[in-house]
Amino acid sequence: MYITKLFIPITKDFPSEAKIKSHQLMLRTGMIKQSSAGIYSWLPLGFKVMKKIEQIVREEQDNIGAQEMLMPTIQSADIWKESGRYNDYGEEMLRIKDRQGREMLYGPTNEELITEIFRTSIKSYKLLPQLLYHIQWKFRDEVRPRFGVMRCREFYMKDAYSFDVDESSARNSYNKMFYSYLKTFERMDLEAIPMPADTGPIGGDLSHEFIIIADTGESKIYTDKNILNIKLKDYTFSPESLIKMRESFSSIYAATDEKFNNEDFQLKVKKENQMITKGIEVGHIFYFGDKYSKPLNGLIDSKDGKKVAVKMGSYGIGVSRLVGAIIEAKFKNNIMKWPKSVSPFDVVIIPSITKNNKENLEKAEKIYNFLKKQNVDVLLDDSDENMSNKFKKHDFIGIPFQIILGSKTQGENLEFKEINSNSELLTIDAIKSKIKE
Amino acid sequence: MYITKLFIPITKDFPSEAKIKSHQLMLRTGMIKQSSAGIYSWLPLGFKVMKKIEQIVREEQDNIGAQEMLMPTIQSADIWKESGRYNDYGEEMLRIKDRQGREMLYGPTNEELITEIFRTSIKSYKLLPQLLYHIQWKFRDEVRPRFGVMRCREFYMKDAYSFDVDESSARNSYNKMFYSYLKTFERMDLEAIPMPADTGPIGGDLSHEFIIIADTGESKIYTDKNILNIKLKDYTFSPESLIKMRESFSSIYAATDEKFNNEDFQLKVKKENQMITKGIEVGHIFYFGDKYSKPLNGLIDSKDGKKVAVKMGSYGIGVSRLVGAIIEAKFKNNIMKWPKSVSPFDVVIIPSITKNNKENLEKAEKIYNFLKKQNVDVLLDDSDENMSNKFKKHDFIGIPFQIILGSKTQGENLEFKEINSNSELLTIDAIKSKIKE
Repeated sequence: MYITKLFIPITKDFPSEAKIKSHQLMLRTGMIKQSSAGIYSWLPLGFKVMKKIEQIVREEQDNIGAQEMLMPTIQSADIWKESGRYNDYGEEMLRIKDRQGREMLYGPTNEELITEIFRTSIKSYKLLPQLLYHIQWKFRDEVRPRFGVMRCREFYMKDAYSFDVDESSARNSYNKMFYSYLKTFERMDLEAIPMPADTGPIGGDLSHEFIIIADTGESKIYTDKNILNIKLKDYTFSPESLIKMRESFSSIYAATDEKFNNEDFQLKVKKENQMITKGIEVGHIFYFGDKYSKPLNGLIDSKDGKKVAVKMGSYGIGVSRLVGAIIEAKFKNNIMKWPKSVSPFDVVIIPSITKNNKENLEKAEKIYNFLKKQNVDVLLDDSDENMSNKFKKHDFIGIPFQIILGSKTQGENLEFKEINSNSELLTIDAIKSKIKE
Repeated sequence: MYITKLFIPITKDFPSEAKIKSHQLMLRTGMIKQSSAGIYSWLPLGFKVMKKIEQIVREEQDNIGAQEMLMPTIQSADIWKESGRYNDYGEEMLRIKDRQGREMLYGPTNEELITEIFRTSIKSYKLLPQLLYHIQWKFRDEVRPRFGVMRCREFYMKDAYSFDVDESSARNSYNKMFYSYLKTFERMDLEAIPMPADTGPIGGDLSHEFIIIADTGESKIYTDKNILNIKLKDYTFSPESLIKMRESFSSIYAATDEKFNNEDFQLKVKKENQMITKGIEVGHIFYFGDKYSKPLNGLIDSKDGKKVAVKMGSYGIGVSRLVGAIIEAKFKNNIMKWPKSVSPFDVVIIPSITKNNKENLEKAEKIYNFLKKQNVDVLLDDSDENMSNKFKKHDFIGIPFQIILGSKTQGENLEFKEINSNSELLTIDAIKSKIKE
């Protein structure tokens, strides 16, 4: 893509209510545009990042055998009355009357609807366990939407639901999801710490938040730094190994504000290992047994022929929120560097172009065509800005690799720079290998 | 995927209001489940088909240089008041008040919002033309939703918008989209006929519907059968060739009920070439100049320095509707055959399994593993139903290729059947080639 063709409305003006760096950066680089309070359009640059995040989330759900489906955004109020949550949910729920006067709502989550789908579809333990997920827009009518895509009203979320015949099998589903979440965030180059959490309006007695470390995070976190040394690759996918993995985490102190107890913290964590920092919640998982299956009649025939309420859990990842969260974690000293796996482009070519000399532009186009043929997704900055402005702009756009066609490039040896490293002179083949590494 | 693991609630009971065959088939094979009037959940089988259709639509938009983005589902009423359509739209628009009492709505289309994004982003003719598209859920509060996904309330649509400096350039954007639509439907193995159409609430003076032939279609169509002989491959992508392609179509009589005039029809179409049949609208394109850019102030600097209202068009494809439309076109004599490009699976293995003999199942699993390794998306029917029930079921599921492990299969020679053809004995390598053809 040539930058002059890309729909990327870069601006230096952003409203004063954009207080955190991800919100500022996303407006500045034309990733998003606010359409009304807490509601955003995703412009091509932001859209590409969000789609890459979505795809990683999807692949890791598929890898644990979850099946993708899609529930609608608009739900009937009836099932929420059945579960008893219609009144509980308060003003955050966007309530709607259709032309026939029926009470509808824009789904803030889907426990009721998935239970309704399950109860009419599956009747026997033989077809369990089941893991179903969807990636869909949700709406929560926040009283004060803020922080851009981090706390907006219309947001994109992956929510999964597990169905099991008994609690021990349900806990295995929970552990699989736990593993899948760690793997998902690892692929985005994020350090996510699972922390015991309150269950809130979802309910149940077992819950973890996944929190990534970022100085600007909303939650204060208290933990033992050894928690970062637990490695996923030390565990296999057997139920026993997953239990061990869970035990490794729960044996180390980790708490947010919500659950923090200073006495415990001092007792369990050596002074030199104490880590007190801030973080952003990017995922939340729940086990709640029959909280929904009981009132909604989600019954199955168990092995001994009895009707039992199916045991359920639910598992959320904020896909649109992750775009902002990654910026909060990776934008440092006024320089953004997207993790390779979610970067909007693999590499950007930045030629120095003057009115009378288009030689670098021609060279850039040759390199561009070569890389396109190798399936490298490349951005060519063919704008007529001077190099210092171009560099400044790309500090914000954050593509991790740059090919710079200016004074340092000599013949076949091109100036190549990985953001936050020194530049080096490399041939185009060497560059291709670096990018594809 | 093993069919016993797949979340596919096959049922013989469907409600009496399911009157057309696509609606019946989709409920029957567990592709969708109604959640409320005109609102559906997409279960894994239906979801896979819809995603494949979406991907073809996306690729053909990208191929003409359109850029993908994403606008939200919930819009502010303000921009609709600016354009003057807020009152025009009537009860089909789902109107919402948020907790602050602000007037919002669930977007039935996006001309206003995209114009609002454009006007704050692009100011000069130098950055034109622009083609932007998104694939997003829409809501139209139909008074009588019916025919399953064909006329539902919450539906999935690709809508694109073009921005040009003047009318001749805008007409070229229109022609590119026209071409892209024919290519899109061709890839789904559909014969789509472009027909001049009224512009309705979108407005403008140039519009085409794309209609696929299906006996059960909603629109009656009248045309010269020679229109099916116009081949896309005879045209290139130059503006001149695109004009010629448009002329080839407009030189041949083609009209729906709406525009039909019998005198013209008899005059322009030889008796033996007259084709009177039914069809389903799957796409609709519009050129409307400055209908939205004028009231919404979408102005650009033209080459001679004047401010002019940008010339716009809009282009829709019903992605969720296409799932039903393809069934209407391809489900014949009680047998469904999905076009290869959108089939939920590439091939199904159907082994005959009895209580005492699992030999065929073991053989099936070997073939399954072999094909999976070759990146073939294969369904294995490991259920314990008898063969006649299995065949009946797969007549509805509609996967185009079957490997049957019953009495005819002998050693290395497997019974292979393309739906609606006779079966033949082939080695697994020959089968692989047939599937990948």
